[in-house]
Amino acid sequence: MLIHEDRLFPADPATRAVARELYQSACSLPIISPHGHTQAAWFAHNQPFPDPAKLFVQPDHYIYRMLYSQGVSMDDLEIGVENIQNPRRVWRLFASHYHLFRGTPTRLWLDFAFQQLFGLTERLSEKTSDLYFDTISEKLKTPEFLPRALYERFHMEVLATTDSPLDSLADHKAIRDSNWKARIIPTFRPDSVVDPEFAGFRQNITRLGELTGEDTATWPGYLNALRKSRERFKTLGATATDHGHPTANTANLSTEHAAKLFAKILSGNTDKAEQELFRAQMLTEMARMSVEDGLVMQIHPGSARNHNRKVYEKYGRDTGADIPTATNYVDGLRPLLDVAGNEPDLTIILFTLDETTYSRELAPLAGHYPCLRLGPPWWFHDSPEGMMRFREQATETAGFYNTVGFNDDTRAFLSIPARHDVARRIDCAFLARLVTEYRITEQEAFEVVHDLTYKLVKSAYRL
Amino acid sequence: MLIHEDRLFPADPATRAVARELYQSACSLPIISPHGHTQAAWFAHNQPFPDPAKLFVQPDHYIYRMLYSQGVSMDDLEIGVENIQNPRRVWRLFASHYHLFRGTPTRLWLDFAFQQLFGLTERLSEKTSDLYFDTISEKLKTPEFLPRALYERFHMEVLATTDSPLDSLADHKAIRDSNWKARIIPTFRPDSVVDPEFAGFRQNITRLGELTGEDTATWPGYLNALRKSRERFKTLGATATDHGHPTANTANLSTEHAAKLFAKILSGNTDKAEQELFRAQMLTEMARMSVEDGLVMQIHPGSARNHNRKVYEKYGRDTGADIPTATNYVDGLRPLLDVAGNEPDLTIILFTLDETTYSRELAPLAGHYPCLRLGPPWWFHDSPEGMMRFREQATETAGFYNTVGFNDDTRAFLSIPARHDVARRIDCAFLARLVTEYRITEQEAFEVVHDLTYKLVKSAYRL
Amino acid sequence: MLIHEDRLFPADPATRAVARELYQSACSLPIISPHGHTQAAWFAHNQPFPDPAKLFVQPDHYIYRMLYSQGVSMDDLEIGVENIQNPRRVWRLFASHYHLFRGTPTRLWLDFAFQQLFGLTERLSEKTSDLYFDTISEKLKTPEFLPRALYERFHMEVLATTDSPLDSLADHKAIRDSNWKARIIPTFRPDSVVDPEFAGFRQNITRLGELTGEDTATWPGYLNALRKSRERFKTLGATATDHGHPTANTANLSTEHAAKLFAKILSGNTDKAEQELFRAQMLTEMARMSVEDGLVMQIHPGSARNHNRKVYEKYGRDTGADIPTATNYVDGLRPLLDVAGNEPDLTIILFTLDETTYSRELAPLAGHYPCLRLGPPWWFHDSPEGMMRFREQATETAGFYNTVGFNDDTRAFLSIPARHDVARRIDCAFLARLVTEYRITEQEAFEVVHDLTYKLVKSAYRL
Repeated sequence: MLIHEDRLFPADPATRAVARELYQSACSLPIISPHGHTQAAWFAHNQPFPDPAKLFVQPDHYIYRMLYSQGVSMDDLEIGVENIQNPRRVWRLFASHYHLFRGTPTRLWLDFAFQQLFGLTERLSEKTSDLYFDTISEKLKTPEFLPRALYERFHMEVLATTDSPLDSLADHKAIRDSNWKARIIPTFRPDSVVDPEFAGFRQNITRLGELTGEDTATWPGYLNALRKSRERFKTLGATATDHGHPTANTANLSTEHAAKLFAKILSGNTDKAEQELFRAQMLTEMARMSVEDGLVMQIHPGSARNHNRKVYEKYGRDTGADIPTATNYVDGLRPLLDVAGNEPDLTIILFTLDETTYSRELAPLAGHYPCLRLGPPWWFHDSPEGMMRFREQATETAGFYNTVGFNDDTRAFLSIPARHDVARRIDCAFLARLVTEYRITEQEAFEVVHDLTYKLVKSAYRL
Repeated sequence: MLIHEDRLFPADPATRAVARELYQSACSLPIISPHGHTQAAWFAHNQPFPDPAKLFVQPDHYIYRMLYSQGVSMDDLEIGVENIQNPRRVWRLFASHYHLFRGTPTRLWLDFAFQQLFGLTERLSEKTSDLYFDTISEKLKTPEFLPRALYERFHMEVLATTDSPLDSLADHKAIRDSNWKARIIPTFRPDSVVDPEFAGFRQNITRLGELTGEDTATWPGYLNALRKSRERFKTLGATATDHGHPTANTANLSTEHAAKLFAKILSGNTDKAEQELFRAQMLTEMARMSVEDGLVMQIHPGSARNHNRKVYEKYGRDTGADIPTATNYVDGLRPLLDVAGNEPDLTIILFTLDETTYSRELAPLAGHYPCLRLGPPWWFHDSPEGMMRFREQATETAGFYNTVGFNDDTRAFLSIPARHDVARRIDCAFLARLVTEYRITEQEAFEVVHDLTYKLVKSAYRL
Repeated sequence: MLIHEDRLFPADPATRAVARELYQSACSLPIISPHGHTQAAWFAHNQPFPDPAKLFVQPDHYIYRMLYSQGVSMDDLEIGVENIQNPRRVWRLFASHYHLFRGTPTRLWLDFAFQQLFGLTERLSEKTSDLYFDTISEKLKTPEFLPRALYERFHMEVLATTDSPLDSLADHKAIRDSNWKARIIPTFRPDSVVDPEFAGFRQNITRLGELTGEDTATWPGYLNALRKSRERFKTLGATATDHGHPTANTANLSTEHAAKLFAKILSGNTDKAEQELFRAQMLTEMARMSVEDGLVMQIHPGSARNHNRKVYEKYGRDTGADIPTATNYVDGLRPLLDVAGNEPDLTIILFTLDETTYSRELAPLAGHYPCLRLGPPWWFHDSPEGMMRFREQATETAGFYNTVGFNDDTRAFLSIPARHDVARRIDCAFLARLVTEYRITEQEAFEVVHDLTYKLVKSAYRL
């Protein structure tokens, strides 16, 4: 077997016994996925997923960044190729390097999917490559593997996608208009129209004006256009926005100053500092709008995007070369918090790629400001050790109730159950230690694990 | 029962057995509290403590910052109100949110006090709120709960308070002049007269001159006034000074430059950089005076004070909105260490809110400079996980003997035994692991735990 | 006994059993030491090592920095004295302070050497000081303790030293020309000729020109001289270079700009920023040369050298007062990676003194760039807890196969087996946890521990 029923539970027998019991109470709760990068189109059209290479390898930067780091060519993996020429060859390349993933969460997620969904029980390797390819390919053609069937099989209660204000959201509308009763909702992600360094930024602003009937050449028109876009998302079920910025900087400029800066940004004649100031100001504007319209705000700062210039030039954005950077939340968020930090109805969920901020900055901030909550460990830290560090470093100051449960943040739909399973197991392992060390009672732990798995995510995201 | 006799010991039976034995040898040692924020007045006047809300909730920012973070209004908690109007209501508000503290040290401290001091055995909750309120209220009126009785019951050997150079120390004198044989001593904390950003700084300097008979309008007179103040503290038993600065920056200006800077600071016409430089210079001046008069120097850097502007404006300093910041000791302390780092009779105890510095900066510095020692985990890190991280990250480079035992740093007198108990248990847990992993012998561990609990604090603070 | 056969294995019986089995498979593998500071002269001349003080205390900054931190005078330890006057007295001073090393790796290394090499079984202390001194002194005179005999007894396969381009490498040549079949190889460490702040930098450049027959007063001549030096090292077996810089900064200047900067540097009329820029540019030049000649590049950034001014002035470089600093790899390495980050045949091994970069920067970088590998925990972090943190924080993103096994980085030849033993035990402890938590199988763990101990270091260093 690829996966063991006690996986990720501590070896100490007493602690493991508690963890197992806690997990029994949490494992069958529905999955709520309030933040991720699946495609509404899959569920609108409900077409079979393509071959294993296209499904598992091509979209998953966790996989191909590791392969690339060990000298596998991205061309051989057909990264960025629209129609994969030789999926079996790509799959073999992956299979023959599967040992590289030992000790990584990718291995845990994949083995879970391979065994639970496809019934595979021998480890992936060069030897079993074709067996895997054929087994998966065949299953993908069956009705049980259509997107909607999987959504139901995964016992999902909510699935949020991430969408641009320039997106028509037609797929979301199509799902709503169908008879299928699933809750798939968009998330308002405005990078393309608030980040001056985003490709096509100025055209995007123009397009935003066309879509909303606002004059986005002016500061008030631009803000109105954003308000209308958010409203449009809300009508399709959105409850949250998402903001991926290079830093946690926010600003609180006067209206006049902000309008001047916007004009300069639109002129294209700006430097890095002005672009950063504009992004910083836009976080505060988004917070103001959230106070008005109730959308929960998610801030994901601290990624140096497209760090590998050659890979970026050849394969484009999001190809595995984003690298975390040190992030300063204490000074960065201050202007925004000055404006809205004490607003009773505002919720801001903070994420980080800089684990040093858990105990130094994020837990102290979330343990004080009523608007702040801590998102789960993100990206490279969405892993057993990473999650454990988060609980160990954040809980003592922020408690459990300033956190918001798990989110999977994934493009890989088939990995969703595996990812939630890992999170639940690690939470149970952490709680089991608190129980065996008499820091909380077992009865409390049952309540907390239910909160961490189900209740907190629903309340934090207003679902 | 609220607390278990094996709490905080590792679950592994062999390790737990060693931890238990070590703890048996340490648990009845006297408490030495060389750094904290209790009030000498309590012991001078020996009046009953007021009601539970005034005693537990109002002065404890650990408690109300958590409640505030979850939407409880600080007005409803009557924070900052001199005479609480409705203590039972405040207590109920706290009681009904007690689940928020699961997994936090506050919960450990409170449960210890509730059970050990007040005999309560059912968990605090909305349901038990009145039981707690009535039980505690009644006990507080009894002679066993008067401050001096508690001091003795707690088996305290020394208790240091923290005091301004502008304080008359009349309460300390009164304790000395009474027949009560307790060692309650002041600590020289000069923020109000060395930090230009401190409220009333210039008036404070004038007042310092009046108190000491020195012309504090001049640099030499100002330094003399500080020397005399320190001497006054020493006559009342002080053995240490304490310095809370936003950064770890120190400076080593020429006398002429320092005098000019002081004049400019006094003029009030300075910028942030000059104010920071002045604070930096004053740390070095304090070190020079410590070389002269033998007072141990404590440096607590890295807190962004009053981060929440609105809370600060409404409720004032120290209301739970201080947030840690990244701190650079390597460059910051260099000027001071250039001056005094190799002085044989100087002791400087360093604290941090930035745990990343334990292994990177503080342990390497303390493991080399003869004057440097590491204070225990501070504030948000005064917690089971925080203490364990400190031992794991500092010991391998600094050893045990460059650390100084525990201090409770608390305003909450009733939590002192609980806090020392947690520290002793975690030290025993850490040492038990070293023993079971054959890194030290059990016999050595007994010696080390005695040193960590009793001997090192006495020698480091010269008590 | 001083050391226990199960030392450093987790106490949990199931985990310990797995660790023990893994260790059995790894403990007798040959030692490969690809990076260290032993002296080729020892093996060229094969003379007996001197007395215990000269052998253990004087060259080991781990030892005397700890003693100095606790008030022991460096003069009494005869640090920096060519011929120790009273080695027995120095040894006693060390012995009587041996308790300071409880909980440190130094203690583990020394106890291993004392017991395994010298048969001592009672702990070092004031009482046993003379027993130790006499026992060790006597053994050192026997043939079994000559350098070459120890090399063989240690079961070493490769031993790399670290050498200046200005070094004749005569000792390396002598070893090669002898009949002794051992692989002792130099490493190209160009600090003295690429760091403008290095003592005698300009004379060093002139000397480099003389040694290589190149005009090092010109930029192309200087680069050629470096190329020729590297070639000379290669002919004596070198497979790697080593670069110790204050930061991780690299640069990618135009040839013209670089030539101008070099001229300015040679003129001596430069500031700190230009000196830093020159070092940054030289890292990129070294990477270019590595692409050409295949030497593996090691980068060791982030040490503030000679932090204690008085100690430096009196006792010179490398006397225990180097302190780590926060290090930024993401921005720092970018210019170099822009030039050479995707070169298929380049290997750069990164080290750090800033553990916060493991999960935030180093693992994400090494988990993407094909040229990057992670060196083992360095210096203060070459310790049981430090190694465990490295595995816990780096593995989930970089995997095992972007790491390069262990290196001892030591001047203390007798500690080499002890250091490798600690590393193997910690790797086994880490892997045993992964096995008992069902994250990898035991069969995989056997393969991984062999890779970590033997295979990865050979392939990464091209040995």
